[in-house]
Amino acid sequence: MSRDPIARTRPRSADVDADRLWRRHLEMARLGATPKGGVNRPALGEKDIEAHALLATWARQRGFGLAIDDIGNMFVRRPGTADDAAPVVSGSHSDTQPTGGRFDGIFGVLAAFEALEAIDEAGIETRRPLEATIWNNEEGSRFVPGTMGSGVYAGRLVLADTLAAVDREGITVADAVAALKRGIPDADVRALGAPITAFVEAHIEQGPVLEDAGEVIGVVTGIQGSRKFHIEVIGEEAHAGTTARRHRKDAFVEAVAMVNALHEIFHDAEDLARFTIGQFEILPGARAVVPGRVKFSIDFRHPEISVLDDLGDKVEPACRSRARACEVTIDELPRSAPVAFSGLVPDAIEAAARLRGYPGRRIFSGALHDAGNLARQFPAGMVFVPCERGLSHNEAENAKPSDLAAGAQVIADVLVDLANRD
Amino acid sequence: MSRDPIARTRPRSADVDADRLWRRHLEMARLGATPKGGVNRPALGEKDIEAHALLATWARQRGFGLAIDDIGNMFVRRPGTADDAAPVVSGSHSDTQPTGGRFDGIFGVLAAFEALEAIDEAGIETRRPLEATIWNNEEGSRFVPGTMGSGVYAGRLVLADTLAAVDREGITVADAVAALKRGIPDADVRALGAPITAFVEAHIEQGPVLEDAGEVIGVVTGIQGSRKFHIEVIGEEAHAGTTARRHRKDAFVEAVAMVNALHEIFHDAEDLARFTIGQFEILPGARAVVPGRVKFSIDFRHPEISVLDDLGDKVEPACRSRARACEVTIDELPRSAPVAFSGLVPDAIEAAARLRGYPGRRIFSGALHDAGNLARQFPAGMVFVPCERGLSHNEAENAKPSDLAAGAQVIADVLVDLANRD
Repeated sequence: MSRDPIARTRPRSADVDADRLWRRHLEMARLGATPKGGVNRPALGEKDIEAHALLATWARQRGFGLAIDDIGNMFVRRPGTADDAAPVVSGSHSDTQPTGGRFDGIFGVLAAFEALEAIDEAGIETRRPLEATIWNNEEGSRFVPGTMGSGVYAGRLVLADTLAAVDREGITVADAVAALKRGIPDADVRALGAPITAFVEAHIEQGPVLEDAGEVIGVVTGIQGSRKFHIEVIGEEAHAGTTARRHRKDAFVEAVAMVNALHEIFHDAEDLARFTIGQFEILPGARAVVPGRVKFSIDFRHPEISVLDDLGDKVEPACRSRARACEVTIDELPRSAPVAFSGLVPDAIEAAARLRGYPGRRIFSGALHDAGNLARQFPAGMVFVPCERGLSHNEAENAKPSDLAAGAQVIADVLVDLANRD
Repeated sequence: MSRDPIARTRPRSADVDADRLWRRHLEMARLGATPKGGVNRPALGEKDIEAHALLATWARQRGFGLAIDDIGNMFVRRPGTADDAAPVVSGSHSDTQPTGGRFDGIFGVLAAFEALEAIDEAGIETRRPLEATIWNNEEGSRFVPGTMGSGVYAGRLVLADTLAAVDREGITVADAVAALKRGIPDADVRALGAPITAFVEAHIEQGPVLEDAGEVIGVVTGIQGSRKFHIEVIGEEAHAGTTARRHRKDAFVEAVAMVNALHEIFHDAEDLARFTIGQFEILPGARAVVPGRVKFSIDFRHPEISVLDDLGDKVEPACRSRARACEVTIDELPRSAPVAFSGLVPDAIEAAARLRGYPGRRIFSGALHDAGNLARQFPAGMVFVPCERGLSHNEAENAKPSDLAAGAQVIADVLVDLANRD
């Protein structure tokens, strides 16, 4: 770690290296690369552990500290002059959706690490330590629920229950965390829930607002809330060629009637409600068999808690009233209330953006993020940068190197600012 | 084989053994038994080959002949006094749907074998040989298309193409037939397509008509025709939390719009059209991802060819007109025209039923059967017996031992009748 005595007397600029940041995105994108140019990197699977190990290698080269907590969050640490002070932390996640892209999550990790390197190269000392982190299992596609690592860290999820969650092959989170620790044997132990001065996360917007407006930096003011449901429709299998309509208990036909009712309920003229059926499974799934069972998911998000309450509460009656010959069960997963970032972090982001020449447009997040969990315990905020056509959770996800660098620059400036405040 | 000189001068009755027939159903049901009391026995899988081997064991104990043809149909043979004459054949299939029952298919095999045994025990000689057969891969759930063995035998399918068809694991029909031959190494070779005097198949009705009418024997007059389609809707994956409805290309939403249009088109007041969507797959199938792709199947059956033509031709325009932001591809599988059984076999079945005290109700088949293929080349017909609540392609499928015995009795009487005619 380079130390420069002038840094303490004259403010210096920690300028990020746009080329290095881009190259590291490409290196990370090789881990779990899909034929269509995307990334499939399940949380703490083989490729995700390789991604952690790669960041750990870069961290060691720079002389940074390295630690892993009990739920598998990893922290790269640059000490502060008051090293006992609570750190200022930045980061995101390295796992992806099964057909995910090259920027969702990993950008926030690499922006945080680039910020630490740029600060280090500039010889800037900070009073509080700085940390770049990878939160475990944000996507929730290997283990349920998502934003798991940050959720346990912030006390929203119970450690013991969460460690017992299993993936489709029956592997527990505890097993996966043990595999991570074996993969990075020299990491220290990080205390779960230890105080954080402030948390700031960089992320691609995953929506079209910044691109449409021609803006580079979004100052995120909050995250919309969500409600999630699993619906199961139970009918009766029967022969497709012989069973008259009046004798059928066709789970598919009744599930589609429920879907129609739901589409009507969640259709808002202002197009603010995000209603998605992303899973829909038919059983037994044979062409000549009337479906005996259908399972489907509902993902509903909205910025306003009153709308989340009102529309979400209509799911159960809508499904029940469309079940005729079939039975239906409706399970709701834990809700996420909307989050409002306010005060310290968004203001610091806006100030940093303006100093670098960006208006710092205020924007609301449609997607859930780890920062939403952290905000329940610590001052938190987010920086958005544009992504092509707002496309995310898609192998074609894309972003400009210069926009990624701008986001990382704002992170670096915010870290120095917040780490040196009283 | 017992021979009794009196048989030639005085007609004797070949009375089937209801207990033995029932016990054999239970023995067969153990091969591929499911926890819910059904059967999962994919065509020429390990359990299906065991089913063939079990029948072969019983056949050898009785001194009957045994042969397998090039597409994996198996024939048990009781010689005739004019053994060069074309045989009278009865049988069905031993494969099942993945969640199939204990009677669909195997009843027709065991009824035919019971008929041969009863005829043999009664010492009745027939001029023409009698054969009990297992047609290969009727269900079409391991290999596509279904009614494969009878289709090749009757010249409706080309042998070489059919042998090259693969299951989900890439195993060819040719490999599966070779496995059957290894499992029954002492079987003779049966010539594919060799002339058949008449074919008669016993089967559970797989519908509620006989049970509702309190009838035991149905004389099948024909089989409805079918058209089958595969539809694929191609949209674009996107983030469920951030992507506004107006920016989505949601393959699920558009597929459901197509399904709604199809349900409207195929809804007939008389409830004769059998319209089923039995497969519906969403990709990538993640809760937080707007579906980029949906594939679904259409199975449409009707007794009248004009309705098959008219309604079936509406599938493509209905789907195309509901594709908005998405693309759609529509593939049709080979059609099956309706089959009419007439003359020799249905009349012989009706006469035999009446002699045994059953009215012999005329009935149309909703399901496709091997007899439909045979009817295109040879005189053919079918005997139906009731099944509980008309339920089939379901693990709860059930039938009464006495009804099964009645069906087997009619088969025995028809075989003796047709094998001794000039």
